Amino acid sequence: MILTVTLNAALDVTYRVPALVPGGTHRASAAGVRAGGKGVNVARVLHALDHDTVVTGLAGGDPGRAIREDLAAAGIREAFVAPAAPARRTVTVVSEEDGSATAFNEPGPHLSIEDWTWFVGRYHELASRAKVVVLSGSLPPGLPDHVYAQLIGATGTPTILDTSGPPLPAGVAAHPTVVKPNADELAAAVTTDPDTAARQLRELGAGAVVASRGVDGLLAVTGDGCWRAAVPEPLQGNPTGAGDACVAALAVGLATGTPWPELLADAVALSAAAVACPLAGDIDLPTYRRLAPLVTVEEFDADPDR
Amino acid sequence: MILTVTLNAALDVTYRVPALVPGGTHRASAAGVRAGGKGVNVARVLHALDHDTVVTGLAGGDPGRAIREDLAAAGIREAFVAPAAPARRTVTVVSEEDGSATAFNEPGPHLSIEDWTWFVGRYHELASRAKVVVLSGSLPPGLPDHVYAQLIGATGTPTILDTSGPPLPAGVAAHPTVVKPNADELAAAVTTDPDTAARQLRELGAGAVVASRGVDGLLAVTGDGCWRAAVPEPLQGNPTGAGDACVAALAVGLATGTPWPELLADAVALSAAAVACPLAGDIDLPTYRRLAPLVTVEEFDADPDR
Repeated sequence: MILTVTLNAALDVTYRVPALVPGGTHRASAAGVRAGGKGVNVARVLHALDHDTVVTGLAGGDPGRAIREDLAAAGIREAFVAPAAPARRTVTVVSEEDGSATAFNEPGPHLSIEDWTWFVGRYHELASRAKVVVLSGSLPPGLPDHVYAQLIGATGTPTILDTSGPPLPAGVAAHPTVVKPNADELAAAVTTDPDTAARQLRELGAGAVVASRGVDGLLAVTGDGCWRAAVPEPLQGNPTGAGDACVAALAVGLATGTPWPELLADAVALSAAAVACPLAGDIDLPTYRRLAPLVTVEEFDADPDR
Repeated sequence: MILTVTLNAALDVTYRVPALVPGGTHRASAAGVRAGGKGVNVARVLHALDHDTVVTGLAGGDPGRAIREDLAAAGIREAFVAPAAPARRTVTVVSEEDGSATAFNEPGPHLSIEDWTWFVGRYHELASRAKVVVLSGSLPPGLPDHVYAQLIGATGTPTILDTSGPPLPAGVAAHPTVVKPNADELAAAVTTDPDTAARQLRELGAGAVVASRGVDGLLAVTGDGCWRAAVPEPLQGNPTGAGDACVAALAVGLATGTPWPELLADAVALSAAAVACPLAGDIDLPTYRRLAPLVTVEEFDADPDR
């Protein structure tokens, strides 16, 4: 079982409007609503690939109930704790004129110490039964930056950390098995070129660093070697779920002990299969199967001067 | 008691963003949430003026519960029926850069026949005890245009109708005591100049027509005469709640048998007191008291050719 953790789960609401007019009043079409947050998206991808997965985190109030019901309807096992503080919503407005998506993300709930200790108890129980633990996304306001470090340190199970801002370096210090920043997150965490930044993040505590670089594919700096992996054709679509699909592939690879080059090829193909879908968490399986054998994986020397 | 009816009640959510960037991702500040819909706004104004009021309509699901809880917290009596179909939300994004408000309004729930008959039973009971019934706002999708006519025809209590689109002429046919279109609604219902349009709307069945014309104040065509009423100074602020404040004044005037000139002066001053507040349903009482004696009310001959 792969456990995905979403501390700041969201109810993602999508409105369609003929065109977005700032300052205007829009009659929004019937709202699309589904469970969201990066860990939820990772679980959706794992579920689509028929991997055993459980979603946990905090999802309270009315939005939390809607999140849990949506996952149940999708057949995805969830074990969220449900504090009184309501989970956040995100509102995405899609313009039918130009297809653009404009997002408004609420910050998330203010949790009590009781909420947090309730969740940590649930986490201990689930993580001990998991093959891999995935820790994804932002923190609700009020949770300290080091909570990912606490969760990583509390389990002997391999961990993948995918977050940004101050929680990223704080979490890396607790030695997660893999860290998956994107190019922006990498640059924000360590200010230098991507190869060096990935290596430095590893020196800070990460067992391996797999950085997504958009159309340039993945960059991996690991204890076994360094690789660049990319898809041989340009992709068009929605990049928002690509990082979560990549993390899903990394989790499967860790759980099954797949060698890095094969694992990275899989992660690149699965990311591309997410770009082909309009909603984060969805993947296009034919795209995945078509691209997987075409991904190029190139080993390189991370530090030629040393 | 003045009964206000909101068939398409809304949970109004407000996000603040530093600036609205179409196509961008916005970290929205903690959401402001309150009960909305035109009849709810009318009740807020009546409550602020210490008039006895009850809010009814349909407010189901999680948003409906939040609507009812918000009214309870504000001390406003509500008697909504709560079907399973969730009430709509509206999302308004306020840009801190330029103060502009961009609104996204969900259409509303699809009600069952059981929901509607449940509400009609509640309405009969409440309307028979009311001095005035106020029927405000849009209809949820699926309700036929003539439902306001049904509600007006089902009671001997004086009625005020404030709606737009096809439900406006359909409702007028059932002889409401007062109809309050704004200039756009008047033009859409009857395509001619405002004076003639108001007269024609009266000929279609309305006992009196009070049209709001923005900065030009009110135009009233009644069985007792015709008047124009305006405030002597230009107003700055948020016009969205002005019509609801006007309706609240009309309801009080009908309930107390106030003569039209005095009633219209009150309605203009109360509208102006709503413009002074950023949220629809709120009024600035000092503005109301200051402007009430200053409103000019001018009688005119609606049809000089006849």
